[in-house]
Amino acid sequence: MHVLVIGAAGMIGRKLVEKLAGEKEILGAEISRLSLVDVVEPPVPPALADLASASAMDISQPGSAEKLAAMRPDIIFHLAAIVSGEAEADFEKGYRINLDGTRALFEAIRLEGQKEPYRPRLIFASSIAVFGAPFPQKIGDEFFSTPLTSYGTQKAISELLLSDYSRRGFFDGLGIRLPTICIRPGKPNKAASGFFSNILREPLAGQEAVLPVDEDVRHWFASPRSAVDFFIHAATLDLEGVGARRNLTMPGLSALVGEEIEALRRIAGEKAVRLIRREPDPVIRRIVEGWPTDFDARRAEALGFRAEKSFDEIIRIHIEDELGGRIHG
Amino acid sequence: MHVLVIGAAGMIGRKLVEKLAGEKEILGAEISRLSLVDVVEPPVPPALADLASASAMDISQPGSAEKLAAMRPDIIFHLAAIVSGEAEADFEKGYRINLDGTRALFEAIRLEGQKEPYRPRLIFASSIAVFGAPFPQKIGDEFFSTPLTSYGTQKAISELLLSDYSRRGFFDGLGIRLPTICIRPGKPNKAASGFFSNILREPLAGQEAVLPVDEDVRHWFASPRSAVDFFIHAATLDLEGVGARRNLTMPGLSALVGEEIEALRRIAGEKAVRLIRREPDPVIRRIVEGWPTDFDARRAEALGFRAEKSFDEIIRIHIEDELGGRIHG
Repeated sequence: MHVLVIGAAGMIGRKLVEKLAGEKEILGAEISRLSLVDVVEPPVPPALADLASASAMDISQPGSAEKLAAMRPDIIFHLAAIVSGEAEADFEKGYRINLDGTRALFEAIRLEGQKEPYRPRLIFASSIAVFGAPFPQKIGDEFFSTPLTSYGTQKAISELLLSDYSRRGFFDGLGIRLPTICIRPGKPNKAASGFFSNILREPLAGQEAVLPVDEDVRHWFASPRSAVDFFIHAATLDLEGVGARRNLTMPGLSALVGEEIEALRRIAGEKAVRLIRREPDPVIRRIVEGWPTDFDARRAEALGFRAEKSFDEIIRIHIEDELGGRIHG
Repeated sequence: MHVLVIGAAGMIGRKLVEKLAGEKEILGAEISRLSLVDVVEPPVPPALADLASASAMDISQPGSAEKLAAMRPDIIFHLAAIVSGEAEADFEKGYRINLDGTRALFEAIRLEGQKEPYRPRLIFASSIAVFGAPFPQKIGDEFFSTPLTSYGTQKAISELLLSDYSRRGFFDGLGIRLPTICIRPGKPNKAASGFFSNILREPLAGQEAVLPVDEDVRHWFASPRSAVDFFIHAATLDLEGVGARRNLTMPGLSALVGEEIEALRRIAGEKAVRLIRREPDPVIRRIVEGWPTDFDARRAEALGFRAEKSFDEIIRIHIEDELGGRIHG
């Protein structure tokens, strides 16, 4: 099995590669080759060093996607994207990377298949940003995509292309709409959604964190570990039952900020909770109000996708995967 | 008011131009200039000959869309597309004309606005082909787009772009999803949907027509006159109330083939009905089974869009507009 990961230097990309390195097989067959690509050269996992290659590449640049398709990987994970805030700030860059890059990849695969039959499995990282307010209380699998950002628009368009290219038999694609990933490892960043992770990650490390919204804000979450499992499951799933509708809202946990804090209290104690500083920010509150809060991800659940059922689980996963099992204190 | 019609040589395009020529004004202001574009040079209506110009142009060709945007029309009707069957048969041509052409137009308008503020009204002809089976009995305004053709995919992607470009303020767009237009004037064609019109138009002209499906097939219709009215209304409507969701399913008539035939009997008599020859075609039946049959087009109705309420109306409009008020007989 030749596996290609595009966007392998990102947070989920790195974790996905680590997981592949740990399992050493996929779809019941040994991973014989691993190609890692990102705009910066991605790290190669030591366990797969002899069969992995890493390169820096922007798939929106002419010729890049063709090079990847010419390697004829069996499984392609396409996670490369510029994030929501940047796609909104730089209209042209967003469309170039998130739409033209994805379309270039899809086209390169189609044209490669015209030389000699070729139909890889392709897993695409989509997002709940394809949905735009107003929402029903729970968003069902048949709710329409009316994104309120250029990023969400680019993801929704990529989903449509993925379905059409799959229907045509150019590849066997699945788009997976990730919940907000929590607890995001690393430093606090300026993303409007950053606080959902910050208020847990920082106190668990003995650091202060800022909470810019009220405790009754509800949102839709899954752990980084679940995100990686979504990708692996999507790559190995029997797609016969999926039919022509190739984009799936992933399961997640719908929870209040207050529930995050209660879980933190149960696991790390009052001292950790006291590290959360309340600094209401009306700008962030307004942005967050436009985000979905809950889904009925029935199709994905029926296909065997699973996420966490409580914030206690999400916090424990972070402690296991990022903190070596130990809380600061 | 400078009005640009792209796709002005098509059936709806020609009728729209005739209507504009008859009214001579739009949005309460005189039409001062009328630019007509299509891949073949469109006809110029005599009533507006002194202020109209016609040219043959493929907007997907480099530089074409820029030329149109540089004229800075106040209202743009974008009806240009290759049809469903051709987009399915020729994958590359379909994406080039229906997606790249539309995006080139949108981009040219955006870039024109960077030179000097410019924000035209843009009305885009979309289609119920953005929906793909299975459907609920009535498709509501929030049902998702899962097209089962490349044509439907290209229309759905154009809709997403239209919403994002409108949200960004690059133009003020509205996408209108047309029902199947009936009675289509002209000769019988090979489109799978052709029979819906053929079985009325041909008998009304004293000619035989072939019915390839059963009488209990249900579908979604509007007359050519309604289609033109949708475009005019979309161009003149106050878009404040529309918000960010810029694509609307137009109202229509949900009717059985049997109801078409009953209406024909009432208006043109048994002799006309006897000209319908039943020749079941399993291929056409299967295609038609994948099409939507009914919609709850509540948003468009609330915004004042109107369609026919019976096939008697649809037939009478054809007799008035195409047959000079007379039935063959």
